[in-house]
Amino acid sequence: MNINILMVVACALLSGVSADENRQERVPAKGFAVYEEKGSFQPFEFTRRAVGDGDVQIEILYAGICHSDLHHVRSEWGKEEYPMVPGHEIVGRVVGVGKDVTSFKVGDMAGVGCMVDSCSECPACVAHKEQYCKDVVLTYHSHDRFHGNELTQGGYSDRIVVAEKFAVKIPQGAHLEKVAPLLCAGITTYSPLRYAGVKKGDKVGVAGFGGLGHMAVQYAVALGAEVTVFDVSEEKRGAASELGAVRYVNVNKPSDFQGLDGSFDFIISTIPSGYDPAMYLKMLKMDGQMAIVGLPAFDKMPTISLASLIFQGNRKVFGSQIGGIRETQEMLDYSVENGIYPWVEMIEADAAAIDEAYRKVLDGAVKFRYVIDMKTMK
Amino acid sequence: MNINILMVVACALLSGVSADENRQERVPAKGFAVYEEKGSFQPFEFTRRAVGDGDVQIEILYAGICHSDLHHVRSEWGKEEYPMVPGHEIVGRVVGVGKDVTSFKVGDMAGVGCMVDSCSECPACVAHKEQYCKDVVLTYHSHDRFHGNELTQGGYSDRIVVAEKFAVKIPQGAHLEKVAPLLCAGITTYSPLRYAGVKKGDKVGVAGFGGLGHMAVQYAVALGAEVTVFDVSEEKRGAASELGAVRYVNVNKPSDFQGLDGSFDFIISTIPSGYDPAMYLKMLKMDGQMAIVGLPAFDKMPTISLASLIFQGNRKVFGSQIGGIRETQEMLDYSVENGIYPWVEMIEADAAAIDEAYRKVLDGAVKFRYVIDMKTMK
Repeated sequence: MNINILMVVACALLSGVSADENRQERVPAKGFAVYEEKGSFQPFEFTRRAVGDGDVQIEILYAGICHSDLHHVRSEWGKEEYPMVPGHEIVGRVVGVGKDVTSFKVGDMAGVGCMVDSCSECPACVAHKEQYCKDVVLTYHSHDRFHGNELTQGGYSDRIVVAEKFAVKIPQGAHLEKVAPLLCAGITTYSPLRYAGVKKGDKVGVAGFGGLGHMAVQYAVALGAEVTVFDVSEEKRGAASELGAVRYVNVNKPSDFQGLDGSFDFIISTIPSGYDPAMYLKMLKMDGQMAIVGLPAFDKMPTISLASLIFQGNRKVFGSQIGGIRETQEMLDYSVENGIYPWVEMIEADAAAIDEAYRKVLDGAVKFRYVIDMKTMK
Repeated sequence: MNINILMVVACALLSGVSADENRQERVPAKGFAVYEEKGSFQPFEFTRRAVGDGDVQIEILYAGICHSDLHHVRSEWGKEEYPMVPGHEIVGRVVGVGKDVTSFKVGDMAGVGCMVDSCSECPACVAHKEQYCKDVVLTYHSHDRFHGNELTQGGYSDRIVVAEKFAVKIPQGAHLEKVAPLLCAGITTYSPLRYAGVKKGDKVGVAGFGGLGHMAVQYAVALGAEVTVFDVSEEKRGAASELGAVRYVNVNKPSDFQGLDGSFDFIISTIPSGYDPAMYLKMLKMDGQMAIVGLPAFDKMPTISLASLIFQGNRKVFGSQIGGIRETQEMLDYSVENGIYPWVEMIEADAAAIDEAYRKVLDGAVKFRYVIDMKTMK
């Protein structure tokens, strides 16, 4: 035991808190950050907390680029703090574990999604829906009340330290380079499909066919549903069919909607921009359900009028945020077992390459997910 | 068989339609109508179709005044046609039945709610949710495609003729003078409570404590729920308690909300004017449900932003319109069996008395339902 640790322990004994909580040690990290709203990416050196007794340290191999990263970088969901390292679709190799960690060992493959901690005591945590915990710590740009209120930084970086519970196991045989987007795009669509009880023979609509939408199609098809995809152009018609959808609706082509009113058991909207949700509500069967997972910028946020809810009476609408950690593990296992992966385009860990990828995501030109190969970072 | 009927039959044989469909006979009726948007009531003489083979003719004894009558009279839900006889909470005595009618005989007590016909073939009709049939004929100011597209007129009148299926039986022992409002206010609140599966021990919120709200409280209490009432003043605190609510929230008193976030299994909103639904959404437990049954004027229609749905993820919202005929009968039987009735104030069948009642409903001064004693009509 060296002198530093002795001092920490002494301090803890005096203050009544555990050594772990008092830990001040930091480890260096580097990655890519934006330094201002809508800024471009720049190399960024920073520190993370050292591995605590219940923590896992992961060397990041792959980091997905999620549309929500763009919303955050651009302060479209409220004012953010900069510099910001985005990224909450993370896959890597365990390179350190705390003494209390039981489910990971050095060398294991692990994933981290949108959360890195929560209170573990509230009704949401007890129900394994940590994403609804009021004290949830998001993977980046969240103040971590469990660790001195430090501002978290995300996965466009070389390493990350998280509480053991918030790391998930990557199943044997997984295509590692494609797994990262499952941690957000996968669970965000898998969870509401399960929550709504989608089953064999159901008619399912997937509104918005991007990173989230193309995962929703695959899960719905795997669950035995007959899937219709809605998007704004002709471009993705072929891809929808390739992923197993039986119908593609170009929402700018009125004839594509023929016969669809009152026809769906479940619709999931992944649309990240302005649209009219009532248009989808009326395509639900009576007693049908619609899940909202796409969250547009606040200044373009769509609304549902109570009139359209009443006139589409007995159709249910609910929102859904990602999924709990237990369900994330279930989703990962299910995905790998069923060969369900995102379509990814790999880019180098380079600031200009990330900027370029962001431009293409904004233009809707990505099919369907960029993944940063963090191993290539210089 | 007289010469008129012979002619009708001959015509039917030639045209290939049934005698009943060709029936041109009319019977005189009288009641109270408004002649223009927001007009006052005046006596009104008109005709109704004669009793067809499948019809029941009812001498109206009591007609409830529903808040939606005011919305219609004032063209607040879209442009209406005048003169208009409102009224869709109707109780009376059967005075005539067609030859195919099997479930009613002259002298029976019968009720009519918000609908008088539907297609009987669509998925909604087959599911006994006729209120969602695209061809549903509303009790007043609906074009009846099954009867020459005539404009229907409501219950503020001496008699009504409806298809047998749309008349419900008034159970033996019912307090007749209090039954009428069950046909709308009763079923509109009973149906979503049942649809949401409210059960013993559930925490239920009733937002808006008027004609609908005071029925919702009674059903929720009867189902074993712990009920909290939300309204805008102190005035109705005592009444809520008297009906079995355990808590009353004056929404203008912030301290009344203490501890309520995340506490309800189910909330029903009966509010007929502008408000913020998100305020109620956040008081639901995770996985809780909110039913919207109060429909404000179109120019004051509240909306729910997709952001508040996502941030209250896994809470479900649905609209609900009245209820099907089978469920209306179930509700009537349940209400009478459990002694559940509206609090009514009886008024005379007089134009000035109805005008006065409307003013009090607009001012929120009614406790809780006016019923017109149609027997007193001169």
